[in-house]
Amino acid sequence: MSAFAYEKNGDAIYRQSFAIIRAEADLSRFTPGEAEVAVRMIHGCGLVEAAAHIAFSPDLVDSAIAALQQGAPILCDAEMVAHGVTRARLPAGNEVICTLRDPTTPDLAARIGNTRSAAAIDLWGERLAGAMVAIGNAPTALFYLLEKIAAGGPRPAAIIGCPVGFVGARESKEALEAFAPAIPWLTVRGRMGGSAMTASAINALAGLAQERIPQGHTL
Amino acid sequence: MSAFAYEKNGDAIYRQSFAIIRAEADLSRFTPGEAEVAVRMIHGCGLVEAAAHIAFSPDLVDSAIAALQQGAPILCDAEMVAHGVTRARLPAGNEVICTLRDPTTPDLAARIGNTRSAAAIDLWGERLAGAMVAIGNAPTALFYLLEKIAAGGPRPAAIIGCPVGFVGARESKEALEAFAPAIPWLTVRGRMGGSAMTASAINALAGLAQERIPQGHTL
Repeated sequence: MSAFAYEKNGDAIYRQSFAIIRAEADLSRFTPGEAEVAVRMIHGCGLVEAAAHIAFSPDLVDSAIAALQQGAPILCDAEMVAHGVTRARLPAGNEVICTLRDPTTPDLAARIGNTRSAAAIDLWGERLAGAMVAIGNAPTALFYLLEKIAAGGPRPAAIIGCPVGFVGARESKEALEAFAPAIPWLTVRGRMGGSAMTASAINALAGLAQERIPQGHTL
Repeated sequence: MSAFAYEKNGDAIYRQSFAIIRAEADLSRFTPGEAEVAVRMIHGCGLVEAAAHIAFSPDLVDSAIAALQQGAPILCDAEMVAHGVTRARLPAGNEVICTLRDPTTPDLAARIGNTRSAAAIDLWGERLAGAMVAIGNAPTALFYLLEKIAAGGPRPAAIIGCPVGFVGARESKEALEAFAPAIPWLTVRGRMGGSAMTASAINALAGLAQERIPQGHTL
């Protein structure tokens, strides 16, 4: 017996949620693939108004799908992002990596004169080449990543750059959009963003990557 | 050398962020302790507008501080919430528990005809008595928790009830506020909420619990 009347079926909850978001959010700027990702990101934050701030480079969806299908690791700036990625949706058993709690990170941060979130990115090393990057927390991590790439470091396949907050978040995301030569990017402009929106974006792209695997094709 | 000009000192970033939030957000409804918690929650979502939706029962801050100081475990509905709790801030080495990925959860969900998030709460068992509950994801988890308590189950010390979303989130939080006999509660009304705001609330309360430990007092 239940004291409250509420939907208890997980699939029905998802279906109804996505229907409400598609009815209320202005998704007209997006391609069908982008809209799928935006719907999931809105679901993660509970705000249809977020649609106005979500932005994609034109090549983001296809690049991310290809990278995920080819087994690219997902490099996350925060444990919350890593734990929001649904492993069962990943199309190629992709590794999900967060190096923030590595015991060497604090010393490294002191040495480079930056935050632990930035220092953790140094530990990604060569795994960054062709990777999916998912930054949902620290503006310093996004700035530092772009600095490393500009200095000749490995280039990832795509950057989901959605740090949240009041100091540097907006600016770091503007730097991502302006970065040249461009790397396929997805962002939430302004202060909004965060680990839930970032993990939701990865989960949506992983879902598209699974749907688009050609029949009979072995990855 | 840095390609971008940005604040790289973590403490300075926090300080500036909290100053911006206190300058922009309307915190006049809150006690000093509540305002501290609200500032952290706003920091977690990047939206000063969230202040209008954050609500506390009058006894929440004191009850949560006392429970945390006494070593209450923190029972979370989602891994993202659990991984957002900063262990170093906890005043008594409090356990942080999430049972969502327990291997028995899927079968239990099928048996009770509810979501896995709801079923996971059954696994909290007697640990629920006097615990800090942190629900940041699933409305079904909050509804089911209230049903269990109404049916005579153990009563937690406080409930941070901030599920996010479009189906049941608002209603589950209204049920929390209306629950009788009341349990100290903290919520974000409407669709907003989520794991980051929920973990931020716990981290703020843990910080207050550490500050308010009487000098010379051994916990």
